[in-house]
Amino acid sequence: MALFDAFEKRKEQCLSRADLSRKGSVDADIESLVRFINECDAFFTTSSCSGRVTLIDGRFDEFEVKKQNCPWLLVAHQKCQKDDVITALQKSSGDAVLKFEPFVLHVQCRQLQDAQLLHSVALNSGFRNSGITIGKKGRTMMAVRSTHGLEVPLSRKGKLLVNEEYIQYLVQIANQKMDENKKRTDRFYSCLQSALRCEGIFEKSVLESQTRPVYTRRRRRKAMKEDVLCTSPDERAPDREEEVEFDPVVFTELHL
Amino acid sequence: MALFDAFEKRKEQCLSRADLSRKGSVDADIESLVRFINECDAFFTTSSCSGRVTLIDGRFDEFEVKKQNCPWLLVAHQKCQKDDVITALQKSSGDAVLKFEPFVLHVQCRQLQDAQLLHSVALNSGFRNSGITIGKKGRTMMAVRSTHGLEVPLSRKGKLLVNEEYIQYLVQIANQKMDENKKRTDRFYSCLQSALRCEGIFEKSVLESQTRPVYTRRRRRKAMKEDVLCTSPDERAPDREEEVEFDPVVFTELHL
Repeated sequence: MALFDAFEKRKEQCLSRADLSRKGSVDADIESLVRFINECDAFFTTSSCSGRVTLIDGRFDEFEVKKQNCPWLLVAHQKCQKDDVITALQKSSGDAVLKFEPFVLHVQCRQLQDAQLLHSVALNSGFRNSGITIGKKGRTMMAVRSTHGLEVPLSRKGKLLVNEEYIQYLVQIANQKMDENKKRTDRFYSCLQSALRCEGIFEKSVLESQTRPVYTRRRRRKAMKEDVLCTSPDERAPDREEEVEFDPVVFTELHL
Repeated sequence: MALFDAFEKRKEQCLSRADLSRKGSVDADIESLVRFINECDAFFTTSSCSGRVTLIDGRFDEFEVKKQNCPWLLVAHQKCQKDDVITALQKSSGDAVLKFEPFVLHVQCRQLQDAQLLHSVALNSGFRNSGITIGKKGRTMMAVRSTHGLEVPLSRKGKLLVNEEYIQYLVQIANQKMDENKKRTDRFYSCLQSALRCEGIFEKSVLESQTRPVYTRRRRRKAMKEDVLCTSPDERAPDREEEVEFDPVVFTELHL
């Protein structure tokens, strides 16, 4: 089990390392989810964001707004108000862009089948841009990603291009997305708890905190099918992203 | 090789099926790329979009703009003009949203290592949201996805919320993104040709169209490292998405 030993060692190293991010800590809304995943033998998280609204004073002569070397005028992991955005915009001297970025989570997995389980939960919770990456030395990573976002240019060379009514509307939309993002993240957490319970791949410490018993493998599989499918159909409407079953008829929706 | 036989059968069925998408055909800009991939034994494409600008008359009391059951006021797979958007907006009676959606491609792969090769090419070409999905019966899919987009509300209940100057600026940004998207897609195509040449996993028909010989395995590997790494560093600047090597120090950039 040299592979598992190496995974455990990487997990220990990663989780004992100081959080070098600018924020320096896991976002409050997903602390419990991140802790739950890290208590499981099969996984450890390498990065996360609960979802945020940002206002970056970028340069649009480049293709994308770079986060490096350009001022961040606003970063909010909770709902924000029109006045927060207007105040932040007063500091803009470049091309300010307001973004809503949904929940994102990167999890290193012990083996491919663990990543597949996590991926299935993510897809069934509505995170349709999720995917597995297998890196050097077979390191397996699962990224939980949503299809949703918002990216709106608001100023050019420091000059505001929209009025207050528009900013009010935009903040309302961003806050709606924040609400839905929270619901979806909570659904992912509860689906993951059900799925891991079904698979019985937690540590004892986690098992003890659960109310339901660990089933026999066959019953676990059956239960998992029931537990993991917890997304309402409308939230899985065909997009430019496939459904998990790769039905070519669904794929053709791509050119709707 | 029952697994490979089943893959070949699915490929034949999928490629012989009529394109049921609304558009009914592969986008002109990626016809050659899609043909190249489908000429390769190891892959077949199941859906694609070269990148597009859309204007959808949605409803924002829902979380996301649904494409089903709401009018599409504009769909352009090439650069568009301010007047195209203004004319389309005159038909809006709901909450119109302008989107730029970059190149996306879904490829079913014969086996996991083929998906890993494709994934590596995608990441190194700048498509950092790409990922592998392993579905029922072990069907392996690779999705090529970009981190880039634009999503801008423009009208509410049919009332325009921004002025012409703003729309002009927005169209300029969308067209810049379209240009960069094209460059990135072309880079993916050329990196893929190099990588497959290195791996020597084409059909004879494709090999014959190549100028370089097929190397020995070791030399192919060496050549591949040189060929596949074809992204300029600034285009791989840390985002909310990991680099392929899963360096935890990179992950911490997530909370920049």
